[in-house]
Amino acid sequence: MKSTKTINIIGTVAFDSIETPKGAFPRIIGGSGTYASLAASIFSPVNLISIIGEDFPSATIKEFNNRGINTDGVETINGKTFHWSGYYLGDMNQAYTKETELNILTKFNPVLPEAAQNAEITFLANIDPDLQKQVIKQLKNPKLIILDTMNLWIENKFTELKNVLGLVDILMINFEEIRLLTGLTNVVQAAKELTKIGPKIIIVKKGEHGSLMYHNQDYFALPAYPLAEVEDPTGAGDTFAGSFTGYLAQFDNITDDILRTALVIGTMTSSYTVQGIGIDKIKSIKKDDLTQRIQKYKEVTAVANINF
Amino acid sequence: MKSTKTINIIGTVAFDSIETPKGAFPRIIGGSGTYASLAASIFSPVNLISIIGEDFPSATIKEFNNRGINTDGVETINGKTFHWSGYYLGDMNQAYTKETELNILTKFNPVLPEAAQNAEITFLANIDPDLQKQVIKQLKNPKLIILDTMNLWIENKFTELKNVLGLVDILMINFEEIRLLTGLTNVVQAAKELTKIGPKIIIVKKGEHGSLMYHNQDYFALPAYPLAEVEDPTGAGDTFAGSFTGYLAQFDNITDDILRTALVIGTMTSSYTVQGIGIDKIKSIKKDDLTQRIQKYKEVTAVANINF
Repeated sequence: MKSTKTINIIGTVAFDSIETPKGAFPRIIGGSGTYASLAASIFSPVNLISIIGEDFPSATIKEFNNRGINTDGVETINGKTFHWSGYYLGDMNQAYTKETELNILTKFNPVLPEAAQNAEITFLANIDPDLQKQVIKQLKNPKLIILDTMNLWIENKFTELKNVLGLVDILMINFEEIRLLTGLTNVVQAAKELTKIGPKIIIVKKGEHGSLMYHNQDYFALPAYPLAEVEDPTGAGDTFAGSFTGYLAQFDNITDDILRTALVIGTMTSSYTVQGIGIDKIKSIKKDDLTQRIQKYKEVTAVANINF
Repeated sequence: MKSTKTINIIGTVAFDSIETPKGAFPRIIGGSGTYASLAASIFSPVNLISIIGEDFPSATIKEFNNRGINTDGVETINGKTFHWSGYYLGDMNQAYTKETELNILTKFNPVLPEAAQNAEITFLANIDPDLQKQVIKQLKNPKLIILDTMNLWIENKFTELKNVLGLVDILMINFEEIRLLTGLTNVVQAAKELTKIGPKIIIVKKGEHGSLMYHNQDYFALPAYPLAEVEDPTGAGDTFAGSFTGYLAQFDNITDDILRTALVIGTMTSSYTVQGIGIDKIKSIKKDDLTQRIQKYKEVTAVANINF
């Protein structure tokens, strides 16, 4: 089992300006590629494929490298880094966008370094489905492709998205988005339907309500880790997907039990992310922290003996 | 353990007129007391306390009696039975009320027969908190009181509701209602706060997202049983609470494991209720059906070995 592979992660590296009920956090480090890579690197080396402007701090890139995140595929070009500004109200489940400054992201033309072309496992974080397809075409020996998306692409690039879904193994999608994508209100049914157009495995992320996986005509349902305080939900979904992917990279043969454990890992790491501001928590947790939280999680979800 | 006690259930016995995307079902049997009693009676005898009009079918009362539901506390008076009309859209999570004909329900003045006064376990389904208090006052030897409520009372009888919460052991409340009641958006935190004003145990019903229990400064989180088809969600919450209470009635000493199992039982029975129209499913399931579904539920929620 332990021949950990290097995984590809394609996503954004960005600045986020976030307002929560507790405070404002301008221009902190964010982006789907950032969160996913930091989470994945707990388990496996990462080839990060992204684009940044000259204003992005080299110290952060160095931090990435020190964690085993190879940034050869992160292109730096003239101009400003992608910047998302948003806020959360009391209901921390919903992010409201104030402003999206795409900046150099409009020039993102992902070209995989040779090592990334040969990697077997790829996580395509939420970017334009055309770019996701462009990445897939460069893979020489793909064994496992995991894709995330969002309402923007479902609404504006539906055909392209459906097309790329036919090329991937696992779809990660959130609760509202799977309804939008399928037109079905029953999420369990929606997950089942989606396997007909491509991905063998559908994972529905439900935030505070946990997650649901559909695979081999069967379901796996997980509650979230109960948290009485959520500081900043930004990046929770990318953390979930990143650690899920990184965990899987440790195994040559991915069984159902391994998939389920990967979902628990995703649940645990994202519960850390939301307890800090931005990447503060996810970049500091260790495997030992996860071991402890998993133990606690097992306690809060386990039914000891069902006899009646 | 097996000295099953008779439990009291106080709630409505009613007609429901329900429209779902699949059809209209006028004037079928419904009511919180009905669902809760049918579910509880899988495990324990029930004293049902309610009120009906002369139009209510005696055959249904006979069915209740045949299941071990004692209806001595169901008063029949001149007039028409309570009638709720409502509908569900594609999103079966939300019931929309078309009309509420209270009819004889306005005269509900619950008087407990002597057997009910002596019962140790009482489930107060969702009725006016003043009536809930009136019932509690008649109990001579209460050991366990479980209370359900709804947004109507939170909005219109907040003080009375808070008052009666000080007298009960377990609060059953749904996801939106606990936010309304506490003014807190984090449900985990809300559950914790509510234990400060009375109930030792808070159970949050989240429909398709499962449930969450707060008890002894600790949480227990359960996903729902995944269902690709929901026929009629009416009565799911009352089924949940009724079977939970009926299950507990089998034990003299209620441990944490027993509480957790009772929640699984609630989850299973309510998953049956929503698969049929009205009371069709809940009145026909047997313990053997539950055993099978629990086995399946354990499969779809169990993480075999977490090693990483």
